[in-house]
Amino acid sequence: MPPQLSAIKRIEIIARQTPGVVSLAQGVPFLPSSSFIRDAACQAIQQGKVDRYSLGVGIPELREKISDHLKDREMMYDPKTEIIVTAGAIESLSTIFLSLLSKNDEVVVFTPTYFANYKSIISMAGGKPIPIPLIENRSWHIDFHLLEKSITKKTRAIIICNPNNPTGSVLFKEDLIKLGDLALKNNLLLLMDDVYSEFSYNGAIYNLCQEKRFKNNVLRIVSFSKIYSLSGWRIAFVHGPKEYIQKLLPFHDNLINCAPVVSQYAALAGLSHHKKIITANLKIYRHNREIVMKELDKLASYFSYTIPEGAYYIFPKLKNSKDDVKFCFDVLQKAKVAIVPGIDFGPGGEGHIRICFGKSEEEIIEGMKRLGKYLQ
Amino acid sequence: MPPQLSAIKRIEIIARQTPGVVSLAQGVPFLPSSSFIRDAACQAIQQGKVDRYSLGVGIPELREKISDHLKDREMMYDPKTEIIVTAGAIESLSTIFLSLLSKNDEVVVFTPTYFANYKSIISMAGGKPIPIPLIENRSWHIDFHLLEKSITKKTRAIIICNPNNPTGSVLFKEDLIKLGDLALKNNLLLLMDDVYSEFSYNGAIYNLCQEKRFKNNVLRIVSFSKIYSLSGWRIAFVHGPKEYIQKLLPFHDNLINCAPVVSQYAALAGLSHHKKIITANLKIYRHNREIVMKELDKLASYFSYTIPEGAYYIFPKLKNSKDDVKFCFDVLQKAKVAIVPGIDFGPGGEGHIRICFGKSEEEIIEGMKRLGKYLQ
Repeated sequence: MPPQLSAIKRIEIIARQTPGVVSLAQGVPFLPSSSFIRDAACQAIQQGKVDRYSLGVGIPELREKISDHLKDREMMYDPKTEIIVTAGAIESLSTIFLSLLSKNDEVVVFTPTYFANYKSIISMAGGKPIPIPLIENRSWHIDFHLLEKSITKKTRAIIICNPNNPTGSVLFKEDLIKLGDLALKNNLLLLMDDVYSEFSYNGAIYNLCQEKRFKNNVLRIVSFSKIYSLSGWRIAFVHGPKEYIQKLLPFHDNLINCAPVVSQYAALAGLSHHKKIITANLKIYRHNREIVMKELDKLASYFSYTIPEGAYYIFPKLKNSKDDVKFCFDVLQKAKVAIVPGIDFGPGGEGHIRICFGKSEEEIIEGMKRLGKYLQ
Repeated sequence: MPPQLSAIKRIEIIARQTPGVVSLAQGVPFLPSSSFIRDAACQAIQQGKVDRYSLGVGIPELREKISDHLKDREMMYDPKTEIIVTAGAIESLSTIFLSLLSKNDEVVVFTPTYFANYKSIISMAGGKPIPIPLIENRSWHIDFHLLEKSITKKTRAIIICNPNNPTGSVLFKEDLIKLGDLALKNNLLLLMDDVYSEFSYNGAIYNLCQEKRFKNNVLRIVSFSKIYSLSGWRIAFVHGPKEYIQKLLPFHDNLINCAPVVSQYAALAGLSHHKKIITANLKIYRHNREIVMKELDKLASYFSYTIPEGAYYIFPKLKNSKDDVKFCFDVLQKAKVAIVPGIDFGPGGEGHIRICFGKSEEEIIEGMKRLGKYLQ
């Protein structure tokens, strides 16, 4: 079955082709990349460091820096054998699922989440996504009863987006440990899509990779796209046990050969100035979160929502409509605001919309004003 | 079946880890990228043009430039619907095969060629590579008798690398037209891997995309890695009929989302200065070709070879050994020269070695000197 472009993609394509649209749709940070990063990338270009392929796993300096960065977060990974630099989180996912799945193998996906893309990539790799809805009225937490019932002989992995896109929810430490134990018991891989892991509004987020006993069952994807505003650079990494990382290598080689080398130097500069960049960016996203919630509160007769604890998304429920797809395309056409229908994020997402607040204050205010006008 | 790293990759990994090795192995141009390209990329970075995803098909300016570039070569392709910018030729191949092949579909591959990679990618996509050996004593041309016998109901495509890696051979116009007619008759896709198409030592190379009647059956991959020395930037494009290009899009979206945007600007600058860059580079590769042939002529009791008409490879036959793998690993260990065993390029490649002359004059002379010493 050929993959379809997700509604996010379709909406974004229409939005880009329609003059005057305010887009709160695609999850691309509006902030520019840091001048540290830009200058370092330009220097690497001019010094002739980026013209040739790097090793498939990435340049050694970056892998060493990543290993140090992980160590600061109590995660111990060998830069030589347990880290692979990839061309963005999407390439990480494709490489992992193509290497992991045989025909009809199952992957548990907690929904609503980045479902359209997970589903498309899992299906491309011959597997089956098994959606397990999160519990909305428990702040989007895991239904372990349903989860345990859904694990079969065919289950190979569970994918977890934490903080979650689109709900902005962050999993409890206890729930993550329960997942870890479940993975050990059933010999499953936990695939942590930690693209937003540095975007937390309530302090550091607990991570299973900090625990030695779970190490052999966890692969973790970390992207530079969101935290350093580098989505166009296609740069991320995967860390995990040696055995899995070595299995990924020939598939990564088939898909991309190596991550773009200029982007590897950009990421290296980002990590070298991590604290400065993340502190500044998080301050802005925290402010934006307040704004979008304030605007939504004015429209309380149309929406209810859970306060996002991480990432830069909010996922309001429509009070007066079940058809989120119709709603979003109608809003795009009539109010010229791009937002994403919740159904794109899988079962449990229907009747919701995703608003991205990784945008400028002006865009958020204008977008929300238009949305209010449309509704009233 | 998991893909294996090719011997090229394994040799290159050992070569990079062994001090003092001269590598005539991996096909990476030794020439630096042009200052036009470097400056334009840095400018785009500093202007904030490269931070965000582009549309999946690539930035409009680049697609328009590509369309003009093709028009100059008598190929008519619509920049909006018939061109997609990819993250290198490898990503093009993965996207194409993943979108094209169902389980056990067959792809004809003329060998020796870039076989290890084609095979790995075709297998990853569920297909089967069907190697058809080229005729060495007819300058590596196609055996049409064998080809016609090998086409079955399962055959979906024929892949053609022209100029060919590793033989440096260029197909006759008549043979290409025969292939085109065969594709029309059997409803097959011709997949032209034209990564080296600008590297010709005997004038412009005929291209099937110049003929309207073949257009619906040809997809063509063009990489910027070799012609502009941009292998580390991961940038290429595919052009073909709208129907196929639109089918590629969701798979490309699954693998990479969009090509690295900074590299798209680099490619745009390359195309804007194409003639200057290609003329200068080709002059050097032509000179290198003379050198490597002169050195090989001194070792005529050990090697015979066909003069390469394109690309920057020469593919000598070992006169005194059939075991090219043993030979290459022995040469690497004892003489510290990295060359690639012919068997890596598929049936017909055994008993040969590939030498890349896309290297500096000093490297070629030193490498050939060491090889001579090893043999004598």
